[in-house]
Amino acid sequence: MILLTIRVVAKNQVKPEKIQEFMDLCKNLVEESLKEEGCIEYGVYQELENSEILTMLEEWKDKSSLDEHLNSNHFKEMFPLLSECLEKETEINVYGKKL
Amino acid sequence: MILLTIRVVAKNQVKPEKIQEFMDLCKNLVEESLKEEGCIEYGVYQELENSEILTMLEEWKDKSSLDEHLNSNHFKEMFPLLSECLEKETEINVYGKKL
Repeated sequence: MILLTIRVVAKNQVKPEKIQEFMDLCKNLVEESLKEEGCIEYGVYQELENSEILTMLEEWKDKSSLDEHLNSNHFKEMFPLLSECLEKETEINVYGKKL
Repeated sequence: MILLTIRVVAKNQVKPEKIQEFMDLCKNLVEESLKEEGCIEYGVYQELENSEILTMLEEWKDKSSLDEHLNSNHFKEMFPLLSECLEKETEINVYGKKL
């Protein structure tokens, strides 16, 4: 049986002067998200060739776990604060495994 | 100790009429890549809201494992064939974990 989890790639272009603030804000979000029942993975990753690209790589048990996350207090509180650190809107892709 | 693996997100916008061909070509690439010593994960994922977005999510032991992969025969043979299925060039990001 293949476990059909959901993978999220949320790619952020962060303002250079806001990288530290963005990372500080993410610490709490990562901690709280990892506590969620449906969260398999939640990490923040930096592009090796462009330090301003900071991307969440996430894995959720299923679509409803992701929806719960997006409705959680920790996400809804943090999202506007994180958005203020960005050059442009987050590029979000939600994936299901094919191969 | 944190294991500093490398994560790759290779996002492809596939021509609608080439999706099946792209997936068929990927099967062999996934199989061969997973056999590589430094490969931790190698999968092909489809965007839930746009079936033409097909993305490789990969994890490699370190940067040199990724470099070996990019120089492997199976990658070098498959890359031009996969490229012919695309609307535009693959968007590749290589990441290290921060949080």
